[in-house]
Amino acid sequence: MAEQVKVLGSWGSPFSKRVELALKLKCVNYECIEQDLANKSQLLLDYNPVHKKIPVLIHNGKPIVESLVILEYIDETWRHNSIFPHDPYEKAMARFWAKFIDEKCNEGVWKIMWCKEEERGKLVEEVLQHFGTLEGQLKDKKFFGGEEIGMVDIAANFIGYWLGLVQEAIGMELVTRDKFPVLCRWMDEFVGHSVVKPILPPRDELLAIFKARFNATAWEY
Amino acid sequence: MAEQVKVLGSWGSPFSKRVELALKLKCVNYECIEQDLANKSQLLLDYNPVHKKIPVLIHNGKPIVESLVILEYIDETWRHNSIFPHDPYEKAMARFWAKFIDEKCNEGVWKIMWCKEEERGKLVEEVLQHFGTLEGQLKDKKFFGGEEIGMVDIAANFIGYWLGLVQEAIGMELVTRDKFPVLCRWMDEFVGHSVVKPILPPRDELLAIFKARFNATAWEY
Repeated sequence: MAEQVKVLGSWGSPFSKRVELALKLKCVNYECIEQDLANKSQLLLDYNPVHKKIPVLIHNGKPIVESLVILEYIDETWRHNSIFPHDPYEKAMARFWAKFIDEKCNEGVWKIMWCKEEERGKLVEEVLQHFGTLEGQLKDKKFFGGEEIGMVDIAANFIGYWLGLVQEAIGMELVTRDKFPVLCRWMDEFVGHSVVKPILPPRDELLAIFKARFNATAWEY
Repeated sequence: MAEQVKVLGSWGSPFSKRVELALKLKCVNYECIEQDLANKSQLLLDYNPVHKKIPVLIHNGKPIVESLVILEYIDETWRHNSIFPHDPYEKAMARFWAKFIDEKCNEGVWKIMWCKEEERGKLVEEVLQHFGTLEGQLKDKKFFGGEEIGMVDIAANFIGYWLGLVQEAIGMELVTRDKFPVLCRWMDEFVGHSVVKPILPPRDELLAIFKARFNATAWEY
């Protein structure tokens, strides 16, 4: 039986793109089934009954959910072009930084985007501290994974591409070249990477959505 | 050089006990260095500068932090008595449920404990739904890991032991034998397990702390 790999995803979602990027890096062919998140399909509800969220990787009929869990599965199933370091300690570090990016950096930026005006200052201060930590971790490496893109780079895709659009949408600069030269240099490397570049969602459409959502939120308060 | 394994932990913390339980299941000798969380040691700040939290596993001088990350490291470093299934799909499922337990069940219970009175009803409703999902997942298995304790059981240790004390402290029953017979049967198996039982913190001391903290919180509102 030919191997079946499907991704239930959404064109603008960094979480979907994490899964697609890992599959592309492994040269695994997959079919992407676009989901309407405002009107969830029976397929999505059947394959992710607990969270009802994208992305879902369906491999030979079996669903795997949660993007970081999917990335681990992809690396263990297709073992070539590993996205994790081989050494258990380095692997633990990669897991640590992926979790840090999800829980501190990404979550922090989303909170800034949706918070009340009076809460913004404190949240910005916190998230800048997290980006500082990340800047220190990257140091003089080309990618978090070293010479090639690895697990942490994939987990950081939101910072690599989406963050710039969020900043433009809310009219606030968080990660600037003078304050975060290392992270900004990494962003350039990331979005210019030959496997990353072709799968990034179109800038203008994404920006329009962020602007519309941010204005709707700002309006509520 | 003899192998050095140290755990910076706290006697009452379920997160510390996850690490200890995994090491015990692997028959790895370790030294536990008790941390005063009200007055953090230089050792803790040096070994976990990002989060400044326990537990920290120090293996031959190298620190690993975040309990779920530590569990993965332990399983990859000492490969006997595996706590993960071998099959990548089953392994992904174990990671999914461990994450679900952390983010939905445990987090939900902590929120109930520290929330304002008027928010409690909704939070209880949500957490009971998550426990229902977990009950359905366990079904007729002895442990989440099957016949033996595995990753998900270790991740669920808070539910296995601490939850009962939280319920007693706040005077509210969440997981009862009539509503969650499968989870309650698992709790009995878990706390009675020959490796788990000797490392559980003393009931009375823990209960006194939960009661004192809960009363202090209730007092604030």
